[in-house]
Amino acid sequence: MAKIALAIHGGAGTILRSQMTEELELEYRRGLEAALKAGWAVLEKGGPSLDAVEAAVVSLEDFPLFNSGRGAVFTSEGKNEMDAAIMDGKSLSAGAVAFVRNVRNPIRLARKVMEKTEHILLAGEGANQFAAEMGIETAPDEYFFTEHRWLQLQDAIADGRVQLDHVSEPAASAAGQSVRTKRNWPPANAGGSDLGTVGAVACDKNGSLAAATSTGGMTNKKFGRIGDTPLIGAGTYADDLCAVSCTGHGEYFMLGVSAYDVSARMRYKEISLEDAARETIARLTEISGEGGLIAVDTHGNVTLPFNSEGMYRGHITGNDNLMVVDIYS
Amino acid sequence: MAKIALAIHGGAGTILRSQMTEELELEYRRGLEAALKAGWAVLEKGGPSLDAVEAAVVSLEDFPLFNSGRGAVFTSEGKNEMDAAIMDGKSLSAGAVAFVRNVRNPIRLARKVMEKTEHILLAGEGANQFAAEMGIETAPDEYFFTEHRWLQLQDAIADGRVQLDHVSEPAASAAGQSVRTKRNWPPANAGGSDLGTVGAVACDKNGSLAAATSTGGMTNKKFGRIGDTPLIGAGTYADDLCAVSCTGHGEYFMLGVSAYDVSARMRYKEISLEDAARETIARLTEISGEGGLIAVDTHGNVTLPFNSEGMYRGHITGNDNLMVVDIYS
Repeated sequence: MAKIALAIHGGAGTILRSQMTEELELEYRRGLEAALKAGWAVLEKGGPSLDAVEAAVVSLEDFPLFNSGRGAVFTSEGKNEMDAAIMDGKSLSAGAVAFVRNVRNPIRLARKVMEKTEHILLAGEGANQFAAEMGIETAPDEYFFTEHRWLQLQDAIADGRVQLDHVSEPAASAAGQSVRTKRNWPPANAGGSDLGTVGAVACDKNGSLAAATSTGGMTNKKFGRIGDTPLIGAGTYADDLCAVSCTGHGEYFMLGVSAYDVSARMRYKEISLEDAARETIARLTEISGEGGLIAVDTHGNVTLPFNSEGMYRGHITGNDNLMVVDIYS
Repeated sequence: MAKIALAIHGGAGTILRSQMTEELELEYRRGLEAALKAGWAVLEKGGPSLDAVEAAVVSLEDFPLFNSGRGAVFTSEGKNEMDAAIMDGKSLSAGAVAFVRNVRNPIRLARKVMEKTEHILLAGEGANQFAAEMGIETAPDEYFFTEHRWLQLQDAIADGRVQLDHVSEPAASAAGQSVRTKRNWPPANAGGSDLGTVGAVACDKNGSLAAATSTGGMTNKKFGRIGDTPLIGAGTYADDLCAVSCTGHGEYFMLGVSAYDVSARMRYKEISLEDAARETIARLTEISGEGGLIAVDTHGNVTLPFNSEGMYRGHITGNDNLMVVDIYS
């Protein structure tokens, strides 16, 4: 029996202790802990890693502070468009969706794509049609309405700025700054602001691996931009060596093909998970990308490297069954 | 000065000499030769690889027999939706579009995404809006209407079958078969039928590399399926080691992250372009994928491996300046 292991993230970027209230930090920790518990319950019962990462991500999607599912940011049209991907390392199969609307848990839809179609990635209106045919649970616009996301959109529009899901210190106009100072929950540059993406990776008792990632994309996004989250190899990957979920400035993870890069380094250079993941983040830094990743191997080792100022993250391994949750670097 | 080199493809799959007429084969060869000439003219004048692959792919998109641009297949709604990606290895930058409509040359739009936005992948209506803002040349539906593609859609609908851009021997009903026997140009299972995707890779006099890929996707496709073509790392990749463009059953290239896999094998295993590309295709075979790829390195070496019965392909290198065009294995 392999050592079971689970790691999760809730986004990476500029997360400064100085901009975080005690109350808010506690709230984030609660969200991370709930997701770890949901995934761990599956693994402890001997369930498959695929179910564990789905359960953890559903929990994160339901939590309003993270930029995915319920807490998804708004597009320039005031809509919530979400991306998600899931991959099963054992069968090397994957499913993903891009800019779907009103789907309560995009990760569940991604899994349906994996299991019920011969495709991997469905996008837009077509993906929503598929959701309807599959009887996937939807939710009205009001469900996805969170006040801090709406205020972010107004800020972004006022600034003429497209916010990525994860950027540090967006260049804001004086006007934008003054709007932001009017509210303090959540702080504009602390959690829940420009940060986004949630994800989970797991190793089950059979040593099988799975990865899942979900995001609301970027505030005020236009032109149907698709980031790294739903792209197999960029933001999400799992095979017989490792499972990886990324978070950060998506375009750089796409150029670095970061999720698959961890696996490639392990396989071709014959190095450990930790060394491979560290090298992948070093490469990300080299190409000016910012963010982090979580990864697990078939021995139940986990690693959670990042080059940003913080990453919402947590893990449990069969070593000690201890839940570890952290935010800052 | 590096040895300049150019390779192109017009799709891979079941291409049988027995099902090809002499007239049709000549037509395909003409299309490939025209694209090689267009790209080679750029390289010979000392132009950048990025311009060369764009010129070659524009030529292939304009040629009605290949499944891209003008010759794009029809979706289930009778529309032409196209995907394309371009990547510059020198600057490690990329641009891509997914299911755009009425854009005469999707590869030109992909390049605009690379050069004019901070994003890499734009999809659907948003990508079309971006095209309008950029003043990209459009064409009416009639331009994209090719009779053989329309008949393919009627066949596919009659068979209740979704055709991938590249599949061998689709399981057709007796009714579907009888429809197909009514016409003989192009033959249903020979060129221009289920096959698709075009692409180009090049090395310029400075040893800089670029890759470009374009496709009309699959006949009768639904649900906004996105294949490997516009996904950086899956169907298209270029860096400082190699440039790669893939063609075949897209989902397997996504699972194998095939385009980037060539680069990863070269870098991490320190093997040649030819060995890396051969291993990537061997991996594709291992996971039941069908198709091929074209690749070039900084020394101007080219390789064009495939595991399907044929691949429309061609290349010229600075070794002998000879144009080589081939179809069968």
